[in-house]
Amino acid sequence: MGRSRVGVWLIGARGAVATTVAVGALARARGLVDDAGLVTALPLFQTLGLPAVEDLVLGGCDIRSAPVLATAERLAGQLSGVRRDLLPALAAELAAHDRRLSPGITHNVGPAIARLVAGPGPGPADIRAALAAVTADLRRFREEGRLDRLVVINLASTEPLLADDPSHHDPELFRVRLAAGDGQAMRASTLYAWAALEEGCAFINFTPSNGALLPALVEHARQRRLPVMGNDGKTGETLVKSALAPLFASRNLPVLSWEGTNLLGNLDGAVLDDPEHRAAKVRSKDQVLPRILGYAPHTGVHIHFVPSLDDQKTAWDLIHFQGFLGARMSLQFTWQGYDSILAAPLVLDLARLAAYALARGEGGLLPHLACFFKDPLGVAEQRLVPQFALLEEYVRRQPPAADEPQHVQQGIAKAEGTGRCRLG
Amino acid sequence: MGRSRVGVWLIGARGAVATTVAVGALARARGLVDDAGLVTALPLFQTLGLPAVEDLVLGGCDIRSAPVLATAERLAGQLSGVRRDLLPALAAELAAHDRRLSPGITHNVGPAIARLVAGPGPGPADIRAALAAVTADLRRFREEGRLDRLVVINLASTEPLLADDPSHHDPELFRVRLAAGDGQAMRASTLYAWAALEEGCAFINFTPSNGALLPALVEHARQRRLPVMGNDGKTGETLVKSALAPLFASRNLPVLSWEGTNLLGNLDGAVLDDPEHRAAKVRSKDQVLPRILGYAPHTGVHIHFVPSLDDQKTAWDLIHFQGFLGARMSLQFTWQGYDSILAAPLVLDLARLAAYALARGEGGLLPHLACFFKDPLGVAEQRLVPQFALLEEYVRRQPPAADEPQHVQQGIAKAEGTGRCRLG
Amino acid sequence: MGRSRVGVWLIGARGAVATTVAVGALARARGLVDDAGLVTALPLFQTLGLPAVEDLVLGGCDIRSAPVLATAERLAGQLSGVRRDLLPALAAELAAHDRRLSPGITHNVGPAIARLVAGPGPGPADIRAALAAVTADLRRFREEGRLDRLVVINLASTEPLLADDPSHHDPELFRVRLAAGDGQAMRASTLYAWAALEEGCAFINFTPSNGALLPALVEHARQRRLPVMGNDGKTGETLVKSALAPLFASRNLPVLSWEGTNLLGNLDGAVLDDPEHRAAKVRSKDQVLPRILGYAPHTGVHIHFVPSLDDQKTAWDLIHFQGFLGARMSLQFTWQGYDSILAAPLVLDLARLAAYALARGEGGLLPHLACFFKDPLGVAEQRLVPQFALLEEYVRRQPPAADEPQHVQQGIAKAEGTGRCRLG
Amino acid sequence: MGRSRVGVWLIGARGAVATTVAVGALARARGLVDDAGLVTALPLFQTLGLPAVEDLVLGGCDIRSAPVLATAERLAGQLSGVRRDLLPALAAELAAHDRRLSPGITHNVGPAIARLVAGPGPGPADIRAALAAVTADLRRFREEGRLDRLVVINLASTEPLLADDPSHHDPELFRVRLAAGDGQAMRASTLYAWAALEEGCAFINFTPSNGALLPALVEHARQRRLPVMGNDGKTGETLVKSALAPLFASRNLPVLSWEGTNLLGNLDGAVLDDPEHRAAKVRSKDQVLPRILGYAPHTGVHIHFVPSLDDQKTAWDLIHFQGFLGARMSLQFTWQGYDSILAAPLVLDLARLAAYALARGEGGLLPHLACFFKDPLGVAEQRLVPQFALLEEYVRRQPPAADEPQHVQQGIAKAEGTGRCRLG
Repeated sequence: MGRSRVGVWLIGARGAVATTVAVGALARARGLVDDAGLVTALPLFQTLGLPAVEDLVLGGCDIRSAPVLATAERLAGQLSGVRRDLLPALAAELAAHDRRLSPGITHNVGPAIARLVAGPGPGPADIRAALAAVTADLRRFREEGRLDRLVVINLASTEPLLADDPSHHDPELFRVRLAAGDGQAMRASTLYAWAALEEGCAFINFTPSNGALLPALVEHARQRRLPVMGNDGKTGETLVKSALAPLFASRNLPVLSWEGTNLLGNLDGAVLDDPEHRAAKVRSKDQVLPRILGYAPHTGVHIHFVPSLDDQKTAWDLIHFQGFLGARMSLQFTWQGYDSILAAPLVLDLARLAAYALARGEGGLLPHLACFFKDPLGVAEQRLVPQFALLEEYVRRQPPAADEPQHVQQGIAKAEGTGRCRLG
Repeated sequence: MGRSRVGVWLIGARGAVATTVAVGALARARGLVDDAGLVTALPLFQTLGLPAVEDLVLGGCDIRSAPVLATAERLAGQLSGVRRDLLPALAAELAAHDRRLSPGITHNVGPAIARLVAGPGPGPADIRAALAAVTADLRRFREEGRLDRLVVINLASTEPLLADDPSHHDPELFRVRLAAGDGQAMRASTLYAWAALEEGCAFINFTPSNGALLPALVEHARQRRLPVMGNDGKTGETLVKSALAPLFASRNLPVLSWEGTNLLGNLDGAVLDDPEHRAAKVRSKDQVLPRILGYAPHTGVHIHFVPSLDDQKTAWDLIHFQGFLGARMSLQFTWQGYDSILAAPLVLDLARLAAYALARGEGGLLPHLACFFKDPLGVAEQRLVPQFALLEEYVRRQPPAADEPQHVQQGIAKAEGTGRCRLG
Repeated sequence: MGRSRVGVWLIGARGAVATTVAVGALARARGLVDDAGLVTALPLFQTLGLPAVEDLVLGGCDIRSAPVLATAERLAGQLSGVRRDLLPALAAELAAHDRRLSPGITHNVGPAIARLVAGPGPGPADIRAALAAVTADLRRFREEGRLDRLVVINLASTEPLLADDPSHHDPELFRVRLAAGDGQAMRASTLYAWAALEEGCAFINFTPSNGALLPALVEHARQRRLPVMGNDGKTGETLVKSALAPLFASRNLPVLSWEGTNLLGNLDGAVLDDPEHRAAKVRSKDQVLPRILGYAPHTGVHIHFVPSLDDQKTAWDLIHFQGFLGARMSLQFTWQGYDSILAAPLVLDLARLAAYALARGEGGLLPHLACFFKDPLGVAEQRLVPQFALLEEYVRRQPPAADEPQHVQQGIAKAEGTGRCRLG
Repeated sequence: MGRSRVGVWLIGARGAVATTVAVGALARARGLVDDAGLVTALPLFQTLGLPAVEDLVLGGCDIRSAPVLATAERLAGQLSGVRRDLLPALAAELAAHDRRLSPGITHNVGPAIARLVAGPGPGPADIRAALAAVTADLRRFREEGRLDRLVVINLASTEPLLADDPSHHDPELFRVRLAAGDGQAMRASTLYAWAALEEGCAFINFTPSNGALLPALVEHARQRRLPVMGNDGKTGETLVKSALAPLFASRNLPVLSWEGTNLLGNLDGAVLDDPEHRAAKVRSKDQVLPRILGYAPHTGVHIHFVPSLDDQKTAWDLIHFQGFLGARMSLQFTWQGYDSILAAPLVLDLARLAAYALARGEGGLLPHLACFFKDPLGVAEQRLVPQFALLEEYVRRQPPAADEPQHVQQGIAKAEGTGRCRLG
């Protein structure tokens, strides 16, 4: 499996997270950084024979035209976590990566994202044209990179919540709408996901955009034995929540109020400053507690744009809880982390694990990846440690890497049945 | 089992935790408070048929003479969590409880505890006499209360660390030393624990004092099928640590430094202000991280006495960690909890669960109670959620309460073999 | 002056702050509490001969009918600062105080306040009738209490911002509107303030409601030599701001962002949860920094209603600032204070100092009271220490108390010219 | 005055603060950074005609041999505030600066500093020889740099407290001891200060080392019209304290406890980890509150060495205070600042202001510089704003810069009378 070539197609490839992914993969390939932050670098995963980070071939698209190198340099500023001294050695490769990137599509992305694009936007207005463009980009990426397997990962800005629609639950109806060019109940993320599946790729939704992994698309993926998973990478405040909330549950300490304030200064913050887009994010963040506690305490999830913080997301949470004899007590925490630095290694982890699942023909949702997401599709468990135990059990269930080729073959055979993606 | 009478003998019965235990048990008996904070009130435990909190018969001893009611009134001050309006209804019962308490023993308790006692101290100087006194107190408590089973719980102030000694590992040698009146390698907590076991009681060490559950005593308990467990109730900063540290482990985020400052204003704080006593506490708190993380980060565990805080323990921790590309980030938290309010329900939980184990003849350490302790004897697992899973699994392994009587009989038969404690 | 009887008429007399004022004044009269929190108890003020707190005669009105004693009992809960043990001794007097209170008026108070009143509300719909009612209440209070001087203090919930209007700047036009019953450009607070001035009282606006001390009313007060001051008592986060911000100014450390989150659970919080009402509060809080720093940094002032916090207001501020060589650093603070406990002594301070100014015939704004307000009318200085220096200088300028009667006479003569309020 | 050449001789010139001073001065000379953090860049100081930062000639000594450039590179790491991109442009000049530095002396510096020096240490063992060496270094610096005025600033690590001695209060006795080579009651800082004064230099003690500005030396400076000031630059937690404490004083809110924890990871932290050295620092920090509050609350000043924090000092303070009706409330803050970034501009400010005072012949202590110091010698005022007002008043008292030359001449004439330092 190590020998098969894996491509990672990043939607939002000029953004902070994708740029950090690129810097990190290149820096690892040159041995400039250690593997801190990479979950799949833990000893647990050694036997799986995952594709190496340095072997991943990166590509992607973006609706903006900001050069990746410029983003990288901004991220090497003082309130971002990318080491400035890494960049000179990587500049040429980053520039080459940049040149290979495709334009993105802007169908129904919501006002705050649309504002990011100068002019009419790079994508075609007709959804069929948009879909064709994405498909062509994916094929070119696969062919030019001689890639065996492809993982598509959505890192684009958060779209507004997409209201429910019958077509979201019926793959056939969805296909009819698509054929008719009726994209009212779709967003750009929907089209990306559909194109990815049609091309036989794995698809990971690292964003809260609920338009991407609609039930109809998940069912489609299951049928084609293509792995998909989401939503919304768990990198900061919610990560802490999912570790802390079980404390209150297991001590029978009723949470009276859990009030969280998130300050962020990057593009993510600017987009989330728009109430329509923020709603999607808040929904994703706000369902963690009820699932862990078994009841819905008073909560507040506030997100404010503070430009001077750049990429250093700062979250302050106040947890007010009740104890014995009715006494009220509190726990407060301040989390100060570089947003992209926290997200990027998880993107690489997901790329490796999705590529592995793709090779094995695992179709539909990947519940063992729940620990990576704020809103893990199909998984009710929100506590971090049991979520991680799901991943540990998955790994332990796998055959040793030596046995793997056969299974990979089998996986490939199955995936090949879907027709599109040339594999191993 | 509900009908059998369970006594709970509290060492340090005039202290803040024991007083809160008494207030809480009495208030629950009168329906004045709900069951927040009581782990054993969670639905999980309903099938076990645990003795009801309101049926527990409380007793105990203390080296101080401060009236329990005075302690309760102090705890109903503004920086303590006991509701002042509870006290009038409970005053008569608290006074009666107070009158039943015995004096404690002061053998080798360390300077800061010795200072608490005016004059020569209430206990006999000779350890044989001390042991006899404790034994007599336990017997009288059992007889006067017509108790079927007895759980002894150490809530006394933290003794200095007891240095290792051959007699700690050899029950026979220990017994020889005891017979010779040679208590050099023992502390008051050792004598209490020995007396409890000789009297057929369960013994719980809720303190960091390592003199109580010496290996020789644990072995003694195992042989006699008497349950014992410790050390050091996990109520505050360490509880949070055991919930948060797995986050860093499962995300492969190396902890660079975990620096904790604990401010407390009660008697516990005054005693721990003495470096000799503090060492025991710090050792108990400082071993959590290495066990969870698999390596020993730079840590600091600081404890300072701040009288104005009374019972409101305030802990501030700064966790400095490394992420992808070598970036350094931080999480800080402030925990503000009422020390006794957090501890007291756990004491009641442990009393109920130890009484249950005693009835079933479970001898030696009780690993399923690991989640209650900072330093759970015999259990390497320090992560809160998996510790709680041990308890869940234990409960699920138990026969329904209806089956219980037989098992209880069996347990009693075994325990009766030890001769002393009238059970059943 | 000590012998003259001073009345304090509290608008919002059934609320948390006014109730704490009443509890505090009564408790001081009985020697149950010390003078912590009372600025005018500092040695500085000893020579002034201010009316004693225990001699103040309290009265007032409220649109709600909640008994003061019930409010006091709620405030003696665990997350409020009123000591429960004070209440039994004061219950009879609090009940008597309650019986003397008048109903309030609800003209144009905004949606969140209007919701507090069941039914059509206690006040007359016509502003002339409303004014007449308030006037009658003030007169009855003065006569029944045989009061020499009267200070009216607005403690009612925050009204929405009142848009500017020509009548606000022209006492004659204002009077014309009033006579015509045209109250469109007025709120309840406007009518209270006008009635107070017409009755020769001092008027203090402890709230952010900008309808109270309109320029026309300030000018009216100046002409009649009646002291007035506001707006918005400085009790918590803004108090800290006004102490901390000069640090950044005097060290030439540009503030990049000052982001503040205020969580509060009392009625004040419930009203401020309404965006229309919150706007007034935020405006009052948000102008402090530009005045101190000389430039307007990025700021956020967020207010959230968290019921479980009761009266324990919790504010978290993150100050992000720039230092030498462009380095960015931060200061964050968490303020946890009982809202009413912080406000009540300032109300008593203002009552004493306004009564003093009234006796001396000081008309118009009282700049020496700037340190008590978030938005001190007529004073640009926002730094706490220089504001307090204004007060110190005022005190030092005053003649010794022995000389005072004459000045009082003079003041009275002037005020008597206005006809209404019997003084001296 | 702008034309006269001013030299700044830094004791501890290879340390983090001195290196940041050098980087900052050079970067400013090249226009690479703005003037944030420089107090003397505020408009207030424009009329004084202070020597420009970029015209200051830097020199100094150190007992260590670490290259300045290496220190600068360490300071450009991620937890330090020096921008990495500044260094390439400054490397040659920093290296030249490094070559000009002299070795330091180690007389009686205390164990933690002595450990910093490999071997027997660079300085002579005999204090007369040490003094001669320092004197020769100062002269060479002055001559080689053709300097008109010289300011010596102590930035060396904190020495242990120097116990009181009669010679500290009697310049003649001090001189006798010196002549006899009896340095028992002196430390290295004493010798540096004496040498500086003998050479007609201004002397600033930016450290808590109390051996530097002994009363005898201050008197000596006064007689010779040489300006001196100290102790201990106010850069972080104490700076915040001096801004916040007046809040509690002016609101009559008794402080019950002020507990502070300082975590730092640089060399300063390593030295202060030694209890003997820490005592000096704690004493300097711990006297601020009593002077502001007028009473001594319970306080704790804890300093811990946390290597991973590098230069990012993190302080957490909990202020527990009492309000009206005895209610207890709290304020906590976390200060996260780069130690050297905060200190360096103040060193440049002090150099400029001390050079100015030297030119004007101001002898002895400089009370108008109180705001720069934790323990401002000869000034009881500890509140930041009034301290800054002292500086403002000083500036306003000065003649306009145009008038200055004459005064400078006069100052020079006086200083020349002391013989050593060629000025003018």
